[in-house]
Amino acid sequence: MMKKVKTALSVLTMAIGFAATGISVSVSAAEPTLSKADFEKAQLHYFQRCAGCHGVLRKGATGKNLEPKNTLKKGQKRLEKIISYGTEGGMNNFDDIFSKNEISNLATFIQMTPPVPPEMSIEQMRSHTKEYVALKDYPTKPMHGLNWKNFFVVIERDAGTAAIIDGDTKKIITHIDTGYAVHVIKGTEHHKVDHAKDVGRFWYTIGRDGKVNKIDLWQTPEKMLVAETKMAYDARDIAVSGDGKYVIAGGYWPAHFVIMDAETLNPLKVISTRGVNTKGEFINEARVAAIYTTPNEPTFMVAVKELGQMWQVDYRDIENLTITQIDSTEFLHDGFFDPTGRYFQIAANASNKMVIVDSQTRKLEAMIDVESLPHPGPGANWNDKECGPVGGTTHLGTGLVSVWGNDPIGHPDKAWKLCYEVETDGAGAFIRTHENSQFVWADQLKHPEPEIQQSVQVFDKDTHEIVKTIRVTTEPGKAALHMEFNKGGTEVWVSVWNRKDAKNPTGEIVVYDAKTLKEIKRIKGLTTPTGKFNVYNRMNHKT
Amino acid sequence: MMKKVKTALSVLTMAIGFAATGISVSVSAAEPTLSKADFEKAQLHYFQRCAGCHGVLRKGATGKNLEPKNTLKKGQKRLEKIISYGTEGGMNNFDDIFSKNEISNLATFIQMTPPVPPEMSIEQMRSHTKEYVALKDYPTKPMHGLNWKNFFVVIERDAGTAAIIDGDTKKIITHIDTGYAVHVIKGTEHHKVDHAKDVGRFWYTIGRDGKVNKIDLWQTPEKMLVAETKMAYDARDIAVSGDGKYVIAGGYWPAHFVIMDAETLNPLKVISTRGVNTKGEFINEARVAAIYTTPNEPTFMVAVKELGQMWQVDYRDIENLTITQIDSTEFLHDGFFDPTGRYFQIAANASNKMVIVDSQTRKLEAMIDVESLPHPGPGANWNDKECGPVGGTTHLGTGLVSVWGNDPIGHPDKAWKLCYEVETDGAGAFIRTHENSQFVWADQLKHPEPEIQQSVQVFDKDTHEIVKTIRVTTEPGKAALHMEFNKGGTEVWVSVWNRKDAKNPTGEIVVYDAKTLKEIKRIKGLTTPTGKFNVYNRMNHKT
Repeated sequence: MMKKVKTALSVLTMAIGFAATGISVSVSAAEPTLSKADFEKAQLHYFQRCAGCHGVLRKGATGKNLEPKNTLKKGQKRLEKIISYGTEGGMNNFDDIFSKNEISNLATFIQMTPPVPPEMSIEQMRSHTKEYVALKDYPTKPMHGLNWKNFFVVIERDAGTAAIIDGDTKKIITHIDTGYAVHVIKGTEHHKVDHAKDVGRFWYTIGRDGKVNKIDLWQTPEKMLVAETKMAYDARDIAVSGDGKYVIAGGYWPAHFVIMDAETLNPLKVISTRGVNTKGEFINEARVAAIYTTPNEPTFMVAVKELGQMWQVDYRDIENLTITQIDSTEFLHDGFFDPTGRYFQIAANASNKMVIVDSQTRKLEAMIDVESLPHPGPGANWNDKECGPVGGTTHLGTGLVSVWGNDPIGHPDKAWKLCYEVETDGAGAFIRTHENSQFVWADQLKHPEPEIQQSVQVFDKDTHEIVKTIRVTTEPGKAALHMEFNKGGTEVWVSVWNRKDAKNPTGEIVVYDAKTLKEIKRIKGLTTPTGKFNVYNRMNHKT
Repeated sequence: MMKKVKTALSVLTMAIGFAATGISVSVSAAEPTLSKADFEKAQLHYFQRCAGCHGVLRKGATGKNLEPKNTLKKGQKRLEKIISYGTEGGMNNFDDIFSKNEISNLATFIQMTPPVPPEMSIEQMRSHTKEYVALKDYPTKPMHGLNWKNFFVVIERDAGTAAIIDGDTKKIITHIDTGYAVHVIKGTEHHKVDHAKDVGRFWYTIGRDGKVNKIDLWQTPEKMLVAETKMAYDARDIAVSGDGKYVIAGGYWPAHFVIMDAETLNPLKVISTRGVNTKGEFINEARVAAIYTTPNEPTFMVAVKELGQMWQVDYRDIENLTITQIDSTEFLHDGFFDPTGRYFQIAANASNKMVIVDSQTRKLEAMIDVESLPHPGPGANWNDKECGPVGGTTHLGTGLVSVWGNDPIGHPDKAWKLCYEVETDGAGAFIRTHENSQFVWADQLKHPEPEIQQSVQVFDKDTHEIVKTIRVTTEPGKAALHMEFNKGGTEVWVSVWNRKDAKNPTGEIVVYDAKTLKEIKRIKGLTTPTGKFNVYNRMNHKT
C-alpha cells in the first residue's frame, strides 16, 4: 500500500526562493512520516547543511548516499546519532547547531523519498535581475581616496553579507547585502589575450541561494552594491570572462551554468550540465562545483562534480557555444591555476586525486594520487629548490599538505609527481602562500579538537618543516580558517569563524606579520568571516 | 484524494526492451484509469505510433502537447474522434490501424500522467553488443561476383528487416534482421579530410527500438549481418565518422547520443542531450532527431530537436570531446548537406523554417522561411539556370516544393533565399534528384486521398513545371513514397508501402526510367519498403 502527500514547500519557498509549485512527494508505507510543518523545516535544514555533500536527490557525492534504500536500514536511532556526533569518515557533528528535535526530524526526513526541486527558466532568473545603480551613473574614477587595490572583499557567511575592508588601515568600510552563505567572490583579472576595462574594480558574489551580486569598488561605500540577479536555487561558484563582458555562475540545483551580461547581470544563456558520467551512467544532479576564468584562453573552466568532467567553455560566441568535455574522475570540487596560467589543478576529492587539465590543448594532462579528500581552496603555488615550480593542497580527510611539481616544460621529470608531503596536526580546507614569502600556511578547520581547529600551521618552503603552529583563537565555538596575503605579501590575514554564535558579529580576522609570524592586529565586528579576496593578489593571479 | 498504481511495464519490456524497473505511475482522482493490462498495451501503442510526434513525456513537438492538463479538457469522446479520423492540422487517422477498443484505451491513456521511462547505462548497452562474424573472419574482398556499389539497402519498416537488392539485376539478395521499424541506414562515405577503408562496404541500421546493426556488403548474403548492439529504447538516426572508426547514434529516449566503435559496435561514450532550449527552458525530453557525418570536417552534426540546436561534435578526441551548440529554432527534424559539403540544411519543421549551418565556421549561417512543416527526407540539390546551385524540400503540411539558392560564394545574392516554389497535389515527405537527371521527384505521402497518396510528381529543373504525375500503385491501403536513383542516375526507384497489410511481403519497389519516366520493373516480395540507399550515390554524396 502506498499513500501520497502533497507538500507546499512554503518554508523553503520563502527561505531560498523555490518556486511555489507544490511538489508532490511519494511516500511508501515503509517510510516514516512527518507533519507538513516538520517536513518543510527538515527539508530546509537538509538543504542548508546536508545537500552540499549528499546532494538534494541524496545520491551522495563527497558524503554518502542517503536514499531510503540505505537510510531505512540504518534506522532512526542510528541516524540521529550520526547527525549528532558525526563519524570518523568525515561526517560533521551537528549537536551544536540543531536541537534534539530538529535532529530527530532530519533523521526521519532522510528516510523519506527525496522531493525533486523544480527547474528554473531564464525568464524566472530575469525576474530577479535588479539594477541598484544605473550604468550611466557609474563613476569614471574611484569616489573615495582609498587604496582600493589593497581592499579585502570578505565573505560573512551566516550574515549573508560581504565586508569590504581597507587593507592599509584595516578598517571595515562597509557590509554589503549578498545572497545566503556566499561561497565565492570573484573579480575581473588580468588576462593574457582578453583585456577587461578597470581590472579589479568589479566583484561578483554567488550565494548558496543562487543570488548574484555585483560590487563596484570605485563607488562610495553605501553605493557599492550595483546590481543583482538569481540564477539557481542552490549554487557555489562564479567567474568573470577575461574581457570582463560575461559573468558565469554554476548551479547545484538546477544543475546548470548561466552566462550573464557582466554590466547588468542580465542572464543571457543557460547550459544544463546534466549528463553522463565517466562510467557511462546518466546523472540528473550533475552539479557545477567550481568555475574559473582561464588566464590565457578565451574560456571558462567549469567543474561538473558528479560527471568527473571539466567543461572548458569558449565564450567568444555564446550563440554558437563551444564546450570541450574533458574526462577525469569524480567528484570534482575546487581548483586553481599553475603560475603560468596554462594548467588547471583541481581536486577530485572523493577519488583522492588532483586532476590537471591543460587549458591550451583543452585536454586532460595528468592525475596525481594524493591522500584522503584533497581540498586546496584558493590553492598555493611556489618554487621548490629541488622540484622547481610546485603546487600544494590541504586535505579534508587528513592532516597533510601534498606538494607536486607543476612545470612540465622546465622540470619535466618532476611534473605532476609528488615532490614532498608535510604532516600537519589536523585535516584542513585551505592552503596559501605568496611569492614574497618564505612560508606556506595551512589551516586545520576539519579537526574535531578545538585546540587544533583553532590553530594554523606554517611551514618553510626550503626545509619543508613546520616552523610555527599559531593558535589564532582560544574562544569556545570558534575556529580558524582561510589565509590571504595583503598586496605586498607582508601580512597574512586569517579568519576566525564564530561558528556557534553565528548570528552575531563576534567573528574576527587576525592579521600576522608574514615574516616574523607575529600578530599585528585583530579586525573585529565580523560575522562568520570566511573567504577573503585581496584585490591586487586576485587580479594578478598571486596564488 | 490521490491514489497510486504500480505498473510493471511487462508488455513494453518484452516488446521494446525497457528495463524491468517497475515504474511508479501517479494518477490523480481526476484522471481516468485503465486496467494494468490495458494500460500496458496502450502505452506500447502510444510508443509505437504517437511518441514520435508528441514525445514520451507528451510535452509535444511536431504534434501537440498531450499532458492531462490539456487532454482532460478535451475529454474521452473528442480524443477518440481525433485519434480515429485525424485532424486538418496534420494528425494522422488511426481507424485503419487500431480497433475501436484500442483507440478508446489510447484516449484514456493520454489523459493519465505520463510514466517516465528508465535511463540506460553504457553497461546495459554493452550487454546487448553481439559479434555475429568475428573481425578476423571478415573477407578481404567481395565474396560474391555482384556489382555491390549498385546495391540498394532498403528498409522494410514493419518487418524489422533490411533488404539488400542488386541494382543491376533488381533481385532481392537477402533480408537482414534489424531493429523494429528501422528509420535510417547509413554507410561509410568519401570524406574530404578523413579517409575510411573500403568506403561503401559497411552499413549501419538504427531501429526505432535503439537496436544498431552492422551490415558487411562484401559477405555472402547469409553472413551480411556482422554485429549488433542497442543504444536507447527509442531512436531515429545514425552516422559513421569520416575515418570510418566511429558510429554515432541518437536516442529519442533516453535523450542522448552514443559513440560506438565502428568495428565491433561496442559503445564507447554517451552524451546526454537534455538541456536548455533557445527560449531558456530546461527540456528533459530533448531528442536527437538527425545525425549526419560532416563531409569536410572531422565532426558529426547532431540535431537536438526540442532544443532548437545543432550540436557539431568533433570526434578527433572522444575523451576530451568538443561540441559546438549552434542555436537556431525548434523543432529540428531532418536535413542534408549542400553539394560542397560545407552547409547543412535542416528542417525546423514546427517553425516552418529551413535552418542552414556552416560546418566550417561551426555557426548558424541562415534561416529560410518556408511553408507548413518542411520535411526534405534525403533532400535534393541541383543547378538552376537563374539561381545557380539550389536545394529543395517537400512539406508535411502542404503540397509544395520550396527551392532556395545554396551557393553563398558563387551566387551570394541568391543564397539562402527562396528561388521558386512548385505546387504539388499533396503534402509529402521526400524529395530526390540526381546530377544526371533533368527532373526532380516529390512524393505526396501525407495527402489523405488514395489517388494522390499513391502518386508521385516529377518537375523539370529548367521550366519548374510538373511534367508528369505518376500513379505508382492503385491498390487499396497502399501508398507511394521515397525515391532513390541508381548508380548511373538512369533509374528512379519508388517504394510502395503496404500500409494496411503491413505484416505480409505485399509491398514493392517500382523502378522507372529516369529519362522517359516509364515503368521498367516492379520488385515484389517486400514488406513496407521505406527508405532506400544506393551504395554509390550515398558514398559519393549524390543528393
